[in-house]
Formats: sequence, structure tokens, C-alpha cells
Amino acid sequence: MDERIRQYVNEHRNEFLAELMEACRIPSVSEQEEPLAEMAAWLQARLERAGCDVTYWPVEDGPPIVWAEAGEGERSLLSYSHYDVQPADPLELWDSPPFEPTVREGKLFARGVSDDKGDFMARIHAIETYRAVYGDLPLRFKFFIEGEEEVGSPHLAPLAQAHADELRSDGCLWESGGFDANERYTFYLGVKGIQYLELRARGANTDLHSAYAPIVPNPAWRLVWALNTLKDPDDRIIIDGFQEHVRAITPVEEAYLDAIPFDGDKLKAAWGVSEFIGGIDDREALKRFLYSPTCTICGFRSGFIEEGQKTVLPSEASVKLDFRLVPDLTADLVIQLLRAHLDRRGFTDIEIIPRSAMEAARSNPEARIVQTAVEVAREVYGHEPVVYPSHGGSGPMYPLAQGLGMDAVTVGVIYSGVNMHAPNENIRLEDYFRNIVYLVELIRRFAQV
Amino acid sequence: MDERIRQYVNEHRNEFLAELMEACRIPSVSEQEEPLAEMAAWLQARLERAGCDVTYWPVEDGPPIVWAEAGEGERSLLSYSHYDVQPADPLELWDSPPFEPTVREGKLFARGVSDDKGDFMARIHAIETYRAVYGDLPLRFKFFIEGEEEVGSPHLAPLAQAHADELRSDGCLWESGGFDANERYTFYLGVKGIQYLELRARGANTDLHSAYAPIVPNPAWRLVWALNTLKDPDDRIIIDGFQEHVRAITPVEEAYLDAIPFDGDKLKAAWGVSEFIGGIDDREALKRFLYSPTCTICGFRSGFIEEGQKTVLPSEASVKLDFRLVPDLTADLVIQLLRAHLDRRGFTDIEIIPRSAMEAARSNPEARIVQTAVEVAREVYGHEPVVYPSHGGSGPMYPLAQGLGMDAVTVGVIYSGVNMHAPNENIRLEDYFRNIVYLVELIRRFAQV
Repeated sequence: MDERIRQYVNEHRNEFLAELMEACRIPSVSEQEEPLAEMAAWLQARLERAGCDVTYWPVEDGPPIVWAEAGEGERSLLSYSHYDVQPADPLELWDSPPFEPTVREGKLFARGVSDDKGDFMARIHAIETYRAVYGDLPLRFKFFIEGEEEVGSPHLAPLAQAHADELRSDGCLWESGGFDANERYTFYLGVKGIQYLELRARGANTDLHSAYAPIVPNPAWRLVWALNTLKDPDDRIIIDGFQEHVRAITPVEEAYLDAIPFDGDKLKAAWGVSEFIGGIDDREALKRFLYSPTCTICGFRSGFIEEGQKTVLPSEASVKLDFRLVPDLTADLVIQLLRAHLDRRGFTDIEIIPRSAMEAARSNPEARIVQTAVEVAREVYGHEPVVYPSHGGSGPMYPLAQGLGMDAVTVGVIYSGVNMHAPNENIRLEDYFRNIVYLVELIRRFAQV
Repeated sequence: MDERIRQYVNEHRNEFLAELMEACRIPSVSEQEEPLAEMAAWLQARLERAGCDVTYWPVEDGPPIVWAEAGEGERSLLSYSHYDVQPADPLELWDSPPFEPTVREGKLFARGVSDDKGDFMARIHAIETYRAVYGDLPLRFKFFIEGEEEVGSPHLAPLAQAHADELRSDGCLWESGGFDANERYTFYLGVKGIQYLELRARGANTDLHSAYAPIVPNPAWRLVWALNTLKDPDDRIIIDGFQEHVRAITPVEEAYLDAIPFDGDKLKAAWGVSEFIGGIDDREALKRFLYSPTCTICGFRSGFIEEGQKTVLPSEASVKLDFRLVPDLTADLVIQLLRAHLDRRGFTDIEIIPRSAMEAARSNPEARIVQTAVEVAREVYGHEPVVYPSHGGSGPMYPLAQGLGMDAVTVGVIYSGVNMHAPNENIRLEDYFRNIVYLVELIRRFAQV
């Protein structure tokens, strides 16, 4: 660890902070055309000043991707982040206005400071720090900064395909890394995918008196019978062919579980459940949480759902299902397998209505970008970081990283009190400056051949 | 058929009509204390004028039963009817005010005229006509007139038990008989019972992010799995022991099906269904409609039920089930069988919340009261009446009739345009007068030894 880096960052704290605040002052809330355009223009100017070649990749009916490249070398590194932010309301719950960045008790409060302006600003400051301390950047650093992350990145996948050659790099830095509740630095190497869908069954053309139940098909029962063929009471997904597509967990991925803190009793107490599904132990629970696909009833609606009683035979029943995906189970595959499974059992009348979908992403824990990120974290933060080979939730990582053959790792400025998507979003200033130091060292190590 | 009866009724049309209108002028809407009391007092006076011994049977927190008896003889006949009526709103849809009885085009319009004031007034006029033509009443005629029918007769069953000796008779005349859409006079000899209940499953103490689905039990899935054990995809109720309690249909009951008009194609077209459950034919459909118990999902609610998508793991799921009962399947038995069935399969966590219940009632088609009712209908109405040994719906017949060892048959003044429970409720005047003639002859024949 080169002390010159820490020293340089320390000497430029005020300047870096002022620039981060400037970025946070622009109210670039998703789908707000003007501030998003202002933010993109600001970023273009700022990246050019950092010596990048900057272009806009246009997005139909959406804010452009800001694409910037700098440096030369054997290796290349792609950085993903986004310049749109969540809406700030309810405004009355903020202690200072969301778009008037304010420092209090060592923290910077502003909408978007943790998600995700702190990330891209730290990366800009890192390449400038690198140059100031060492001279030329030793690798090709590529910024991909989108403006639609908070509304589900609807244009990301086709755009990544179209620009595959420019995007493809030797590793990818994702957004949203940082400290967990125990102050351990944490990496995520992947996310589950998702296929959200609705199943709908129909009976008579209107709700009928339930006296007709012996003769008129009941769509709620149809859905119950159909659903029952999808998952058994032991919570196993039994859709024909489904499990064959679930890639086996590698011994390396399995071993990672041992190093991940997981307090099952604390979670069970918080949720008020006496045990996890099937009475599994903590290690198995963590394993399933990170690695298992799911088929979840998120909502079920049919017939009379108010208080009281009504003797009605429903005309329609619908269920919202959320499939969380793992490699190599793709979203399209889930729809195909489900349709075939239902048809094979005579449920041809049950309609499948696909909703949003994202593919699963899981990086190789032994990839150079992951190993380097962990090594550098050990040195900069002074402890063994926690590495999650995957995450129970979903995000748009796949099309930009694994889908192009890259491994990705989260790096960032968050901590447990960050209030992401909530009032009083903030980051700790020290986390921001340490992240710059971390990134400079990461670039240096990753570039070494 | 004695022409003197027709003649007497004809001569007293205006008087009978005026009295019926007087009864309909009292706005005895269910749960309206004052008008109900006024109605009961009016009935008491009127029944005393008809030579009855009249008493009130008090009901806790409710309007009293008006109990009246007249006549002497070997046989006795119980008459069930009620003096409360449905609320009249929406008032703006009435062509004349609901409590200002109005004659138009041979019909009398008023709230309650068909349900059920026409019934008890015709019976009062019938015993007076009998006496005028023949002298003393040849049997003991007993009026049981309650004031809570439109709110589910909540006090009927215990009251019937308490007064079993007074109530028990050689037959029972129920309310609501009359002409079907094809102008055929129609009798119902029974109703299905009902046990309405809710099943409820609980998971975590709050809705969770669906990322936790691999480890936290999902109450919606619990309910799906539990429900699936209650009824199979061929619509057979497979609750342990349930079918053993379903009394076999007798050859006589089976034979009655042949005489009941049932146009399956017309119903299917009206409801927009291509076939009945399991593709059954009309005869089987009618048989199940009248004789099969049911287990119907009337409502299912869990998690996110609005438009759109939300990745949520529900904390609660509930389903409303309506069991229609047939002899000898009692309401209590359904609860017991269901509890044992669920427990045996590990669904001890699923709560059963019983709602309203009524027992099944089915008279013996060969009972004297039924045979006599049919015979007299043939003569008075000049065609073969339609006899339904049961009904697809439910009603409070059991505690007052079969529960006391009596057979009951519907007799009344309705026709297909009666608008029961709706604006412009009415009866046809001719139906009212013919019903008096019918009742006199029924009393005469039923009394013959």
C-alpha cells in the first residue's frame, strides 16, 4: 500500500467532497427528462476534464448512456454505475433538503449519494489520483453510466448486445459495495435472475351464486390444482425439467458459505418464525438463500376478498408468481418449461402472462477481478472481507457482465445506515475517501502482468 | 274441486286485496325495531280476528315470533313464514313507493308482497274461506311467523328446539312456492345446508422481500397444498370420511329428476362456459346441482393483489370456503372432519374459522303433505307441477321441519317476474287468489282420514 495515495486523497478531500456535492445537487430523478439531461451533460464535461473520451449512447425514449474511456494497457476494466436516482418523497421526512447536499457528523446527506453518485464520482476521483501519483493509467478504464437503473434498466440488455465489443473487458466493477452491519467490507459476485409472471384462470363470464358450484368450473380451484403441480409441500420446485437446468454449486462456491456471517436465530426472531422451511440449519438456509431458484406466490386473488361472507362462485382467479433464477435457468426457459408442464397436465386453459425478467448472474470467485478486489480490501480495510458469490435478490448485472463473458464484483461506498431509497440517504465521508484509495490500488494491481 | 271456494274467494277479492295492501303498508324492514313491532302487533290482532289463539315467543335482542293456532282435528299443519322484509333501496328504481302498495296491470307492487307477506296473508284468508264455506277447520293449523328471516334467522334453531312439542305437526308448509319461468307450478321439498368458513395460514410477522422465499415459509403455498388435499382435479371432495356421510339418493329421488325441466345449453350459453364440470350431461348436472355437497372457494386472498408487480413474500393467506351440505352431512361434522383431515397431513398450523351454518333439509317425496300438495296443484292449476326434491341453495328449513321429524313443501305466490329482494317487487293478483283456493283445498284434503 503506497502511502502517497492516502496522502494525495487526504490533501484533496475538500475538492473531492465539493465535486460530489455538486453531482448530488442535480435532481436527476428517474424519468425526469430535464434534470437527467443536465446530469448527463455534467458527467460528460466532468469525464472529459478527467481525460476521458466521452460519447452518449442514445436510448430510445430514455436518457442516454454516458460512455467514457481513459488509459491504455494490456488489461481493461469496465465500471457500471447509474446517474438516475430514486424520487425523494416523502420530503417531510428529510432533515435537510434531498438535493441540497449537507454534511452532518461526518456524513454527507443527499438523495443519490449512496445510490449511485458516490460510486461514479469516487471512480473519477480515483483515476485522477492514480495519474497524479503514478502518471499514465495502466489499463483501459471504461465508464458505462446509465440513467434508467431505478426503473428496471429496460434498455440495458439490447444495448449491451449492440455494444458488446466496446464493453467486453477483463473485469467489471459493479455498484453498491460497502460495509455490512458488522463493519466488514462486503462483495457480491452475482445476483439471482427473476421471471415475474401471472397465471390466470377463468370460469363463467360473471361471478355466480355458489349454489352452481357442482356444475360450473371454479377458476380458483383450477389455479390451486395447477399450482400444486409446480411445487411440493417440501418446497421443491417440481416443474418438468426445471431442476436439470440448475447449475450445480461448485466446491469453491460451497466453501465460500463458511466465511459468510449468518445469524439464523436473529432472523427468525425478527420475522417471528419458529424455523426456516423444512427446519433447515443456518448453513443450509444461507446456501438456499444464495443459490436456490424459487417459485414464490407473491399474490393470489379470486372472488370475494373483503371481510365477511359472500356465497359466490368466482369467475376469475389470478396468482402472481416470482421465479428467482440461478445459472443456467434463463427467464425464457422458465416460461417454456412452465407452459409445457401445465399443458401436459391438462391445464391448457391457464394463461401465463409474463411480466419483468432479468437473468441470473454469478461470477467465478477465482476470477482475477474478484481475487484482486479481495486482496486489496484486506490491505486497505485491514480485515478479511466477506464475499457473497451471489445474492438472494436480483439486478441487471448479467447483460453487462456475465452475458459478455466478464466477471463482476460490487465496489462502493455504502454502509448499514445508508438509507438507500429512503429519506436521509447518506454516506460516511471516510468511506468515500477510503473507497478512492481502494480503487487506485485496485487499478494498479489489476493492471499488473 | 268445490266451486264454492272459487266463488267465495272471487266475491271477497277486494276485501282480501285491501288487507294484503294494509299488511304491505307497514315498512317492517329487518332490524328496524319499531315497524317490526308494529307488524307483529298488526299480525296478532289480525290472527285473533281470524279466530286464532295468538302468543308472542320472545327472541333475545330481536323481534318476536308470532305464534298462532286455530282449528281442531286428527292432523296438524305447521305454516312457516316471516314478517320482516328486505330493505327497499335503491328507492329511485321503484315505479311506485315500496311501502305504498299499488295495483298496476293486474299486479300488486310493494316491498315484501312476495317475500313473504303474500304467503301469510293468503293462509289467513284461506282458513277464513274454509270456515265460511265448510264450517270448522278440520285440522290444527299453526302459524310460525318470524321477524328475522332476511338476516339469516339467527335465533331459529334454538327456538325450534325449545318449542319442539308445539311445533311438531303432520306436515309443514314452507314459504316461496309458485310458478317457474315456464308457468309451471313448482315445489321445493328441501334445501342444501351450508357451512361457511375461512382457512387462514400465517408466515412471517410481516410481508418480506421475496428474496427470502428459499428459507421463510410462504402461507399462500401452505394454503394451496392444504386445499389440494380437500378436492381433487376431478372435483371430488376427498376429505377423509366426508363421502361416508353423504346419504345415498333414493330411487324415488333419482326418478324425480326426469320430470324436472333443465336446459343445460341455455345455462352454458348464459354463463359463457363450454361445458359443465367434467363434461357431464344435463341429467347428471341437475342431479349434482340438487343432491351433491360442495366445497367451493368463494374467495382467496394473499399478498399483493393490485395491478402490477411486487416481489413480496406474503405474511398471511386466507381462503373463504362454502360447503353446501346434504343429508346426513351436518355443519359440525364438516368442521370436525376438516380439522382431523388437515391435522393428519401436518397442516396443524392452518386455522379454521367457522362462519355461518345451516343444516341440509330434504323431505320425503312420498310424505302425505308432499303428495297432497302435488295432487291439489294438479287440480287447481290444471297441469302436472314440477317437484324439486331439493334445491341448490340453502335456507332455514331444517330446524323447523326435518329437524323435528316433519316433511315440508314450499307453497306460495311467486312467479318469474316477482323481483324478490329487488326494486318493483310484485305478485300477480290472480296468483294470490288462486293460492287461497289452493290452500283451502289442501287443508281439506290433508285433513281427510
